[in-house]
Amino acid sequence: MNNLQLFSNIQKKKSYLCVGLDSDMDKIPEHLKKLDRPVLEFNRQIVDATAPYAVAYKPNLAFYESRGLQGWKDLEDTVAYIKTKYPDIFLIADAKRGDIGNTSAMYAKAFFEQMSFDSVTVAPYMGQDSVAPFLSFKDKYVIILALTSNQGAADFQYFTSKDNQPLFREVIEKSSQWGTVDNIMYVVGATKASMLVTIRESAPDHFLLVPGVGAQGGSLEEVAKYGMNRQCGLLVNASRSILFASKGPDFAEMAAEEGKALQGQMEQTLSEAGLI
Amino acid sequence: MNNLQLFSNIQKKKSYLCVGLDSDMDKIPEHLKKLDRPVLEFNRQIVDATAPYAVAYKPNLAFYESRGLQGWKDLEDTVAYIKTKYPDIFLIADAKRGDIGNTSAMYAKAFFEQMSFDSVTVAPYMGQDSVAPFLSFKDKYVIILALTSNQGAADFQYFTSKDNQPLFREVIEKSSQWGTVDNIMYVVGATKASMLVTIRESAPDHFLLVPGVGAQGGSLEEVAKYGMNRQCGLLVNASRSILFASKGPDFAEMAAEEGKALQGQMEQTLSEAGLI
Repeated sequence: MNNLQLFSNIQKKKSYLCVGLDSDMDKIPEHLKKLDRPVLEFNRQIVDATAPYAVAYKPNLAFYESRGLQGWKDLEDTVAYIKTKYPDIFLIADAKRGDIGNTSAMYAKAFFEQMSFDSVTVAPYMGQDSVAPFLSFKDKYVIILALTSNQGAADFQYFTSKDNQPLFREVIEKSSQWGTVDNIMYVVGATKASMLVTIRESAPDHFLLVPGVGAQGGSLEEVAKYGMNRQCGLLVNASRSILFASKGPDFAEMAAEEGKALQGQMEQTLSEAGLI
Repeated sequence: MNNLQLFSNIQKKKSYLCVGLDSDMDKIPEHLKKLDRPVLEFNRQIVDATAPYAVAYKPNLAFYESRGLQGWKDLEDTVAYIKTKYPDIFLIADAKRGDIGNTSAMYAKAFFEQMSFDSVTVAPYMGQDSVAPFLSFKDKYVIILALTSNQGAADFQYFTSKDNQPLFREVIEKSSQWGTVDNIMYVVGATKASMLVTIRESAPDHFLLVPGVGAQGGSLEEVAKYGMNRQCGLLVNASRSILFASKGPDFAEMAAEEGKALQGQMEQTLSEAGLI
């Protein structure tokens, strides 16, 4: 996929919603737990219910890896299910990898070839050679952590140089030289939406993956106001607020309602920006 | 395990060698490729050959994850093999994770409970709440990336504040407040051994995991000179130089020779420091 195709899907669905598949075995509905593959079935039903309202899905790999072999198999089968049934969906491996060159190359192979993800989240700490191997795959993206939405973001991401440059901005300005807007995106938390103004100065044309809306309390209106560009340039993620909207047998229906509500708000912001 | 036990193992084996299990399917000897589980068999033979000379093993997770289910199974079985046969060995999951709290907690569960690793490498970019969940496990360590041995280390790790503090040092000084010397270690590349002087100012008593000796060119003598403390405080990693010392049927024998040579050098440095 490239930015133009992604924007076209956003226009078609009038949505820039990414659904985070943080499919925590402990939190999925009780009635599914009797099945052979509870998490896989949960994911299938969540995807089928929310696909009309979402342009992207983002399995958070920790929730799969923590369950060992069975979790890994659920991840592979979830990815295959989405890619087969919904080929236009943009798939993000939320892996937050970042390693030396030959190791990053192995990860790129795992996510882009072994599974058919469109993108992988990557931590910038180890620098260019840890990111570069992901950039050599055609129509795939690396999504670099810039400003995250957790409390610990303040520990190092705001670490500031003598010319008053915070680290998160240095990360964006330096790393944006390593690739193009068609193979790099950035993770930017929604908890301080006004920071998007600063970030758009450094990355006007990149897509931003924005977590922190919903359960984490960020405002969608503000994200749109400060972060949207002429190709939308946003993928806003919601996880728990959709996945666990209900813990009963109506979980998929309630997830759909939650997804539809977010899509409705997104449609309005897209319309106000003259993009649909 | 704790620092005292680790130091005791170092004294017993007269070695602070960590063998990196970067078991690349493309590089293992041809004659093993006919077997059912080539990587598992390779690992078993490497471990059996080098265990007299090593106190730690460090599977690099990328090499397993990139092979999907089969790779994950090889990892699990390698860990179980080592822990059963060599219970004193310190096991490092070289995962370089770093995520928000609930996600890091899932990873901690995966590596410390699902498998019985003693430690996990973690990237510091997301700050305290991404590291804290790993610290709540008794006798387990988080190994935080501080100064890595790859070229891209220069991109952000030397990013310097107005009071002339480089990021890697800020990472050590801040994160060392989050735990103790018995549950935090740091990754410090050997390529610039003189940097160990600076690092020992900030972390005099922590164990340091030092990659970059061997194939990457760092000097063991310099690492010992600048980095050793009164409990040794070093785990020096070698991967390719041991694993692929020979690509023929004598690979295990040659790995043992390489391990023995490194152990010999380490014994000398330990003796010179009066630690054995």
